[in-house]
Amino acid sequence: MSQSEIDHLIQLLSKLPGLGSRSARRATLYLISRRESLLSPLASAMQAAAENVKVCGTCGNLDVMDPCGICRDDRRDKSLLCVVEDVSDLWALERSEAFRGTYHVLGGTLSALDGIGPDELNVEPLVQRVGEGGVTEVILALNATVDGQTTAHYLSDRLSELGVQITRLAHGVPVGGELDYLDDGTLSAALKSRRSMG
Amino acid sequence: MSQSEIDHLIQLLSKLPGLGSRSARRATLYLISRRESLLSPLASAMQAAAENVKVCGTCGNLDVMDPCGICRDDRRDKSLLCVVEDVSDLWALERSEAFRGTYHVLGGTLSALDGIGPDELNVEPLVQRVGEGGVTEVILALNATVDGQTTAHYLSDRLSELGVQITRLAHGVPVGGELDYLDDGTLSAALKSRRSMG
Repeated sequence: MSQSEIDHLIQLLSKLPGLGSRSARRATLYLISRRESLLSPLASAMQAAAENVKVCGTCGNLDVMDPCGICRDDRRDKSLLCVVEDVSDLWALERSEAFRGTYHVLGGTLSALDGIGPDELNVEPLVQRVGEGGVTEVILALNATVDGQTTAHYLSDRLSELGVQITRLAHGVPVGGELDYLDDGTLSAALKSRRSMG
Repeated sequence: MSQSEIDHLIQLLSKLPGLGSRSARRATLYLISRRESLLSPLASAMQAAAENVKVCGTCGNLDVMDPCGICRDDRRDKSLLCVVEDVSDLWALERSEAFRGTYHVLGGTLSALDGIGPDELNVEPLVQRVGEGGVTEVILALNATVDGQTTAHYLSDRLSELGVQITRLAHGVPVGGELDYLDDGTLSAALKSRRSMG
């Protein structure tokens, strides 16, 4: 057997999150049967991404240029700074088209368990960036997890002396969500933050 | 925004079976954060597969050479020919290490619904290969589905005049399987084909 090239591809594909060895084999056969339409373009796209994608030195976003497209965009409100854990969260907010400010990617959350302190995260550059002025509001858009909220409180403390408004995302019933399926924490948060129908 | 290179990669990855747009985004971030250890090697492996993988002209297997490693291997029993629907089935049999003969990949099953007749499959080359002599037994290792069994009967008819023994895989209780979870068809097949404990 000299299937080494095919086996090598299967082995690498199986390292992707969400793909086990079985789905990696399936994907490999699928790719080989679509050589011109998918396999070659995917190989080129990966090569291009490996060569060209950079981490934005200002916000931590991924783009082919540094500063990234969002940081360069004059139409974005530079006085609004949204702090997110990860690039995937930045992408989620961009897809919602609900935010026209700029971002700061932390690169994770504080976690005593995993030994992740402020020095492991993009915290100092954030403090420095806010301290340079121009930012009036920092939105801490961190996940509603224990680590996410711990990190939010820590950042709120660190930024409190810089004279900017610090906010967090609202907790409440997800749009389209049914009360019956919600956890108690979300329900009580939604009740506490109830709004007038006026 | 000039994320086109990243978006292009996400879009191509989301075409893989088992990956939706969400898992494609996750895989893309995972790849970019492992540029040297995974993204570049994967790009090269895909490029190599696109350039070098061939379909074996004898059996329909995928390999970097034609005839494939199995067809070239003198230690394989050329008198035993195992007919499978797909390369993935051939791989499954090879992993089991239970078969030391050679293969013939049909490339699918007959399907009136999908308009797939014998001409769309690798049937004529099979008949020709068996007719050339040297093969004493053809094992129809097709899936135990309606289309698979229809195809098995059709092939059995086509090959019947060539003087070879034609067999199919046994039906029965999967090893490790519990009777309570088996369908009636499997149970009655297992009962009908019961074996002496001697």
